[in-house]
Amino acid sequence: MSSVDQQLDELRTEITSELPSDISVSEVKYEGPELVVYTRDPKEFAQQGDLIRQLASKLRKRITVRPDPDVLSEPRKAREQILSVVPEDAGVSDLDFHKDTGEVVIEAEKPGMVIGRHGSTLREITKEVGWTPEVVRTPPIESSTVSNVRNFLKQERDERRDVLERVGRQIHREEMSDEEYVRITTLGCCREVGRAAFILSTPETRILIDCGDKPGAEGEVPYLQVPEALGAGASNLDAVVLTHAHLDHSALLPLLFKYGYDGPIYTTEPTRDLMGLLQLDYLDVAAKEGRTPPYDSEMVREAIKHTIPLEYGDVTDIAPDVKLTLHNAGHILGSAVCHFHIGDGLYNVAFSGDIHYDDTRLFNGAVNDFPRVETLVLESTYGGRNDYQTDQDDAERNLKKVIKETYEKDGKVLIPAFAVGRSQEMMLVLEEAMRSGDIPEMPVHLDGMIWEATAIHTTYPEYLRDDLRDRIFHDDENPFLADQFNHIDGGEEERQEVADGEPCIILSTSGMVTGGPIMSWLRHLGSDPDSTLTFVGYQAQGTLGRRIQSGWDEIPIDDDDTGRQSTLSLNMDVETVDGFSGHADRQGLENFVKTMNPRPEKVLCVHGDESSTQDLSSALYHDYNMRTFAPKNLETFRFV
Amino acid sequence: MSSVDQQLDELRTEITSELPSDISVSEVKYEGPELVVYTRDPKEFAQQGDLIRQLASKLRKRITVRPDPDVLSEPRKAREQILSVVPEDAGVSDLDFHKDTGEVVIEAEKPGMVIGRHGSTLREITKEVGWTPEVVRTPPIESSTVSNVRNFLKQERDERRDVLERVGRQIHREEMSDEEYVRITTLGCCREVGRAAFILSTPETRILIDCGDKPGAEGEVPYLQVPEALGAGASNLDAVVLTHAHLDHSALLPLLFKYGYDGPIYTTEPTRDLMGLLQLDYLDVAAKEGRTPPYDSEMVREAIKHTIPLEYGDVTDIAPDVKLTLHNAGHILGSAVCHFHIGDGLYNVAFSGDIHYDDTRLFNGAVNDFPRVETLVLESTYGGRNDYQTDQDDAERNLKKVIKETYEKDGKVLIPAFAVGRSQEMMLVLEEAMRSGDIPEMPVHLDGMIWEATAIHTTYPEYLRDDLRDRIFHDDENPFLADQFNHIDGGEEERQEVADGEPCIILSTSGMVTGGPIMSWLRHLGSDPDSTLTFVGYQAQGTLGRRIQSGWDEIPIDDDDTGRQSTLSLNMDVETVDGFSGHADRQGLENFVKTMNPRPEKVLCVHGDESSTQDLSSALYHDYNMRTFAPKNLETFRFV
Repeated sequence: MSSVDQQLDELRTEITSELPSDISVSEVKYEGPELVVYTRDPKEFAQQGDLIRQLASKLRKRITVRPDPDVLSEPRKAREQILSVVPEDAGVSDLDFHKDTGEVVIEAEKPGMVIGRHGSTLREITKEVGWTPEVVRTPPIESSTVSNVRNFLKQERDERRDVLERVGRQIHREEMSDEEYVRITTLGCCREVGRAAFILSTPETRILIDCGDKPGAEGEVPYLQVPEALGAGASNLDAVVLTHAHLDHSALLPLLFKYGYDGPIYTTEPTRDLMGLLQLDYLDVAAKEGRTPPYDSEMVREAIKHTIPLEYGDVTDIAPDVKLTLHNAGHILGSAVCHFHIGDGLYNVAFSGDIHYDDTRLFNGAVNDFPRVETLVLESTYGGRNDYQTDQDDAERNLKKVIKETYEKDGKVLIPAFAVGRSQEMMLVLEEAMRSGDIPEMPVHLDGMIWEATAIHTTYPEYLRDDLRDRIFHDDENPFLADQFNHIDGGEEERQEVADGEPCIILSTSGMVTGGPIMSWLRHLGSDPDSTLTFVGYQAQGTLGRRIQSGWDEIPIDDDDTGRQSTLSLNMDVETVDGFSGHADRQGLENFVKTMNPRPEKVLCVHGDESSTQDLSSALYHDYNMRTFAPKNLETFRFV
Repeated sequence: MSSVDQQLDELRTEITSELPSDISVSEVKYEGPELVVYTRDPKEFAQQGDLIRQLASKLRKRITVRPDPDVLSEPRKAREQILSVVPEDAGVSDLDFHKDTGEVVIEAEKPGMVIGRHGSTLREITKEVGWTPEVVRTPPIESSTVSNVRNFLKQERDERRDVLERVGRQIHREEMSDEEYVRITTLGCCREVGRAAFILSTPETRILIDCGDKPGAEGEVPYLQVPEALGAGASNLDAVVLTHAHLDHSALLPLLFKYGYDGPIYTTEPTRDLMGLLQLDYLDVAAKEGRTPPYDSEMVREAIKHTIPLEYGDVTDIAPDVKLTLHNAGHILGSAVCHFHIGDGLYNVAFSGDIHYDDTRLFNGAVNDFPRVETLVLESTYGGRNDYQTDQDDAERNLKKVIKETYEKDGKVLIPAFAVGRSQEMMLVLEEAMRSGDIPEMPVHLDGMIWEATAIHTTYPEYLRDDLRDRIFHDDENPFLADQFNHIDGGEEERQEVADGEPCIILSTSGMVTGGPIMSWLRHLGSDPDSTLTFVGYQAQGTLGRRIQSGWDEIPIDDDDTGRQSTLSLNMDVETVDGFSGHADRQGLENFVKTMNPRPEKVLCVHGDESSTQDLSSALYHDYNMRTFAPKNLETFRFV
């Protein structure tokens, strides 16, 4: 008998002895980090409100109870019963019964009403019907990404359960080594921005954190080929953890599956969906530019299939000697500071991923409060000595001024924006400005992936800033659903109409004017001296956006019909409004460390160019007397 | 056609065009780092004295010329011719003809006379007989190690040629990567003494430097199991380089072959032989102590078979992007500072191995003069702030005083000593002291492996200190052959005779009184208050030697006949004479760096306990403003 089977056997005995005699245990197994308990008496289980929590705390495991398939009621009957228990206002849109696991997935417009206070309605459902309910939100804006991911996971449910079971046994394997060490190997994003990738390793366990590309530097991918990365085979990785969905952190994750990786990706649920959206777009763009991407969409699906979503704050066993907890990072939807607790009190490491320290309109500021943390791996995008940004109030004032002036000229405001994050922040600023009368009411057109990305945001309001969440949940006021917002889904014809019409605001991808519908908008509006092209995000070296910012007014542009290149004379006003970054600035980074609880002993400054990482590293050393480093790629640091 | 074959083809064409028309080239191949040129006209080749050197410098390769087997003369006839060319005084003791390669190995008491001035006699031999001569020394003291190694290599000649050919093709393969980096990974001997092991890696090449055990800490072996070491398979190593034969650097090399390594070990010839001696003894001791050693003697033979001996100063290609040069390290016979030149002028790293900076009686001080060196990996055994040692003159004076006093009491001086290094240093001190009359003439008995280790020293006088070498070569005065020295080869009976006899000096292993014949000497002499037990080397924590030093006089000892333990009351005088270490002391280490040419930019202080490495690291930083480190095991540093 393997050690895991023996462990499960002992757990079954222990659980049986803890339970009242009228509740039977028919099977106990691991699925990913969870311990799943099958019972012939699910209703009785549910009646004892606190039983699962007691078991979980006694066994120090995450526990899910499921009915033995033999005792399940008819789905048709169960459906009726569920609909009678759940309040009509919950807006249940779909019920999906899975006989093999006794689970029923309930999709509802208001999942909170299906869950009930502290889960009371859920328990009520189990008491009535025996099935184990799982709740997902019906996106208030239809999202093809969310529905594709959900349909795919439904269809792959069997295979996914096999993956989860295998991962579960792997997590709970016996520890083999009597050595002790904790190490971080840098595979990318050191003294540079882009291609984030780290290995966290102990004698038992090897975890890859992020696996991104480097925008604007084709071919500069993380150093996956070295022995300490995939050199010994992708199957030597125990787990992958993804901090957030941006491509410089996620683009090459699917490649791992091409290389034979078959383990879990831990991240938040919105990151999973956004990652799928962005990776597929990454393949799309590569194809359009005539490049051969390193993997195909099948591998994106593999990545999604292997994702185990975690919620902020959940402490999760991901290896025999590693517990992972994700915390809000304030950067984009679902972005996480990833905290690793290693060994039994041996060591703690937090990877910041990308963070925003102060609250923004969209998100609460990054969490920097942990039970323990000895080493922090900190992004340094704006770590340079002069990297102070305009504050949010000033930024908004400047933006509103540009809009008002353009409106008064009867012109249009064209804003190149990244689909994920900055666009939604803009939407909130604009919605509020119009509601409060700071700027006149006018249509806000959303072009490119922005609408889809916004739909994903509305699917996961739990991940938004608390007062925004409250507005959505309690006041039923979802600013993303405001009337001003219009999805450009009618192609060139609709764009022509907008261009010929009244004053308005247009948010369009790509954010650095390197392609996408923004090119079309430039064709329509570029020659209009009354309109304003307004930059609200970072324009990288070498992009058309940067060139326009620095004064180019003769723009090479593909002619729409023929595909030939012609030159466009740019007569629009060009404005730049700083202060809307998703990254903490130098002050924010320092504040993150200064107020961090507890203050770490060591900080690795990464994800910034050479001078930013070194400036930040030396500032933190001088101000707080910590050991700080600005690592190079391909180094290994040992902490224990 | 593979790229190597193509390369060889081109080389053949180039060589043919460089040679006079009467010299044909029948084949060109790589054997290890050498380019071997087969010719049907070996005599004509030899007549053009400088031809090989010209070719070597033109092609920038090490070149060996061999006769095509078809044109070889009869060995019987060749033997006569060779003996007529070589002066009788050379003392030729063996001629060994290898038809497949056209080589004849000439063993002689005075190899210099077979070689002749600048190789003139060797060329004369080829001119006469066509065969390519190779010369080895007949050990002036018979050494079973040397003769075993030579016989083994003779017997394995075919297989060894296959190894060399494969290694040769590997070295000269085409470079694949367009990345650039140089990294060092620490696998052992960081913040500790013992288990030396490093990986030097580039995108092309991975080289293991040393692979030792940790004396007194069973089970603490180098971290070979991590991915960056053997995790991706032993066959991912390109080469192994051994700094010197001591077990804390060499003990686990044979294990690599058990793990599937099939590549070369580069080291000096004496290190190869001493390594064989010490590894077999390592297996022997393990067996005697009832431990299962991690490999068997077959693997020691594999290690010897895969060794490619290099001479000090020879610049050798060991990978497409790495050239290795060994330099005298002054520590023990054959010990080397290993200098790596990486890429075409990209970077240079020197590994000190263990060094002695000042001249000793046995060896010249360590070489610290290089064409270029950016990073030095430096031993720190005596790097602590107070690790200053008695100087050699004082040490010798103290030793002589102890000997004289004991002699005057009619007692015997018993010196526990390491077989390799310290024993031979003692022999030189004693021989000189008796010759000059500083101490009375008396027998010096050598017990344990000392005699054999001394025999190996006499086989390689080229590796000894220059004035000692001159004495041996030119004045024919070999101090190791002095009459006073007696090999204890008659077992207990002889020991009893010595113990019952006149005043004398006894050098016996083990050096830390942890077993071996020294235990027997303690039984014979331990109760004699007129005799003196004299420590001349470091006694590690936990050894019996250290306990006796600190005052123990009741010694648990195995009874010789029954194997039972009894207690011996130690009545001998116990003395310690400092100053005979094979390691540079703190001053020596600082001087090594201070006078190093050029001064390196970075120094990694290793092979010393935590405080020694940190003391030395911070001293070098403060004194010379270099970047210095005291690495932990399992870290990776990147330099380019």
